[in-house]
Amino acid sequence: MANKSVDPIRPTDDGARQLAREIVAGARYGSLGVLEADTGFPLVTRIAFGTSPSGALLALVSSLSQHTAALRRVPVCSVLVGEPGASGDPLTHPRLTLQCRAQFIEASDPARPALREAWLTTHPKAKVYIDFADFSFVRFDVERAFLNGGFGKAYVLEATDLDFV
Amino acid sequence: MANKSVDPIRPTDDGARQLAREIVAGARYGSLGVLEADTGFPLVTRIAFGTSPSGALLALVSSLSQHTAALRRVPVCSVLVGEPGASGDPLTHPRLTLQCRAQFIEASDPARPALREAWLTTHPKAKVYIDFADFSFVRFDVERAFLNGGFGKAYVLEATDLDFV
Repeated sequence: MANKSVDPIRPTDDGARQLAREIVAGARYGSLGVLEADTGFPLVTRIAFGTSPSGALLALVSSLSQHTAALRRVPVCSVLVGEPGASGDPLTHPRLTLQCRAQFIEASDPARPALREAWLTTHPKAKVYIDFADFSFVRFDVERAFLNGGFGKAYVLEATDLDFV
Repeated sequence: MANKSVDPIRPTDDGARQLAREIVAGARYGSLGVLEADTGFPLVTRIAFGTSPSGALLALVSSLSQHTAALRRVPVCSVLVGEPGASGDPLTHPRLTLQCRAQFIEASDPARPALREAWLTTHPKAKVYIDFADFSFVRFDVERAFLNGGFGKAYVLEATDLDFV
């Protein structure tokens, strides 16, 4: 038996762009893939994910975690967002793979207070640790993205398709 | 305010080993992180994940997908398993990060029929596409693993802690 769909990538259209934006807007966590410089291995961990009021993609990470140490050394990374609920089929649930460069937003950054306030509206449990000295925001600058809208519905998106700040 | 837990890694104990094995045994999908040789970026995608009757860690992947192409070139990878249900807090839900080398199990491999049969008992929807020519099994040989049992409960595990085949 052969799979008839030879080219799995569909032309990017407004529906794909809209779905990608909706996945990002709805994501509260995701899977971060970083590259460990010393081992050469990728490392995938779960991170808290959100967006800023201006639409920038953000994570709140601890310097005690391996992914943060890796990102400080090698800023290229990938984030998978679009988690299925308990009832959905995980492999047909729409998801978005982002490839990004990570930029740390240090505690002294004048932008941080507004990011902090906005973050707590979408991640209220973070109030327990958001002010710990080891936690900081990371902004993900998207270079490209891959949308999987379900079996056989794959799209390649550019940063301009996503309108992220 | 400072976080008092300076060393976030706890000594590995039998409880951690057992939790890691339970996460793997219960996983039906996960987040795969591969390294793209041409771009140098990690790439994180959702994959179907399971175990063989002998306990080997497996994925069923399509050669039409980017992660499969990347794994064929660079076999080092990472898999995150331990997905929260709809009601759990994703950031306290236990999860396991594996760092592995991927080995493809080709269609002609005499082990495939038994793997196929076992896979369909845990992934029944795969019967629609498991026999497509572009699908193959990948076995993940674990080099090390990182267990996050919830906030502040981190462990480093070796392959011997996990008893995988």
